[in-house]
Amino acid sequence: MRLATIRTATGTRAVRIDGTQAVETGDADLRALLDRPDWAAHAAAAAGPVHAVDGLDYAPLVPAPEKIMCVGQNYADHIAEMGNEPPAYPTIFGKFAPALIGAYDDIVLPAVSQSVDYEAELTIVIGKPVRHASREQAEAAIAGYTVMNDVSVRDWQMRTSQFLQGKTFERTTPLGPHLVTPDELADGPWEISTVIDGETYQRSDTGQLVFGVLDLVVYLSTILTLRPGDVIATGTPGGVGHARNPRRYLADGEQVVTEIAGIGSCRNVCRAEGARDLPADAAAGTRP
Amino acid sequence: MRLATIRTATGTRAVRIDGTQAVETGDADLRALLDRPDWAAHAAAAAGPVHAVDGLDYAPLVPAPEKIMCVGQNYADHIAEMGNEPPAYPTIFGKFAPALIGAYDDIVLPAVSQSVDYEAELTIVIGKPVRHASREQAEAAIAGYTVMNDVSVRDWQMRTSQFLQGKTFERTTPLGPHLVTPDELADGPWEISTVIDGETYQRSDTGQLVFGVLDLVVYLSTILTLRPGDVIATGTPGGVGHARNPRRYLADGEQVVTEIAGIGSCRNVCRAEGARDLPADAAAGTRP
Repeated sequence: MRLATIRTATGTRAVRIDGTQAVETGDADLRALLDRPDWAAHAAAAAGPVHAVDGLDYAPLVPAPEKIMCVGQNYADHIAEMGNEPPAYPTIFGKFAPALIGAYDDIVLPAVSQSVDYEAELTIVIGKPVRHASREQAEAAIAGYTVMNDVSVRDWQMRTSQFLQGKTFERTTPLGPHLVTPDELADGPWEISTVIDGETYQRSDTGQLVFGVLDLVVYLSTILTLRPGDVIATGTPGGVGHARNPRRYLADGEQVVTEIAGIGSCRNVCRAEGARDLPADAAAGTRP
Repeated sequence: MRLATIRTATGTRAVRIDGTQAVETGDADLRALLDRPDWAAHAAAAAGPVHAVDGLDYAPLVPAPEKIMCVGQNYADHIAEMGNEPPAYPTIFGKFAPALIGAYDDIVLPAVSQSVDYEAELTIVIGKPVRHASREQAEAAIAGYTVMNDVSVRDWQMRTSQFLQGKTFERTTPLGPHLVTPDELADGPWEISTVIDGETYQRSDTGQLVFGVLDLVVYLSTILTLRPGDVIATGTPGGVGHARNPRRYLADGEQVVTEIAGIGSCRNVCRAEGARDLPADAAAGTRP
């Protein structure tokens, strides 16, 4: 089953994707749908208003997750390109919901940075509450998978030891377009790629993951309860712009496609934050 | 004005504290109250059901903020004790809502750690949306102040470069008891302290802050829109257990009081996570 959150004239709606049709499930968004203990049966049986898939306006797959947890240093090839050793524990950082955009929305390049980078990531969406999960419970807690482009404002990410400030700029992070349930997917590994204006910059597969999806759900559930709609981005493979020589950052007007075979792709045009987005004294805000 | 979120038999309620009485404002919690553009006037005029302040059951001051942003390395004395130089930029990391507890709730010491530490922090609560704030807009966006004990699971915090996993264990982080509006407060600096079982471990004042409250609101609002109910913990002074020789961590049964003069105090008993909280195979969850 494929599920999504779309924007309509009267607000967002959760939908089931049936080929060329999207059928409303009666929920405001995917998180509200996943909050139903019987969400899979409910979504499968839903027969609400129907939309043509062509021209759907996708919201972030989960517009307001309780938690967005991201994993760094989790692809063997990316670890090698950054000159690091394979880690003993997953590196976890967060993102906040206002960073999210829909799968086809514009990525806003902040005026305060000239070094915005792409990171294609296989992303888990949680489908039921779980704490201190066994591997079996972890598997049952995964609603399915989607794509995140964990867009990273590298200069701000590197200003201090903690990545968060470079990872959570507003309207930077595509998530979607669909949640794909595990029964819908061929066995992995799945190919993952980033293509900018037709040129490939990342190409790897999820077989390179150091900590796999069950490892991550087990680990994170030791820390706190994972809940329906929680988002776990599992890390990015090699080929990011910041690790290239010369470095290669996103520019106004470029189109970035982040794709995972069988799951889907985000396709986003980069747009420089305009003067109209900024108050007259914005420069004062770049440095305390 | 002092405001809070309390638990009642029928769910949480926002209240105004009037001396020995707490008066319901008609909102489910403080965030819902602050979401009203006229929240200050609404709260001042509220005349709902009344509770005795003695015996109130405080929920986390904001039970489910959109964002909990924490600042590291922000007291001159704490920077010195950790052996670091004053930073050029604020170090920002996150926490997720399930970490929060009420001002008098038990702190759960995770079974997977033996090094849980205290951090008393002056904490900002945002009262209106703001992006790219000037200092004047930042000041207007601050609803008031409260106390957080940014309890830190040091071994997990130090496992990787990113602090988040040690900062967001479930039911570890007292927040409250009250939001105190700025008009209610004497001019700073305000004394800040941590006392465990009657012995003082942290004592400093907010004059030691490297980045002040307006600096932080301006800086964070450059990254994304701050919204009503957002929580910004401004960092902790010297004296944390991890920086002591010998190191000094929280133990089952200890009572921790984190206080800021004029604002209030959290008073929490530490409770070891019990076997009953853990499934039989919990050990498998501690390491992927």
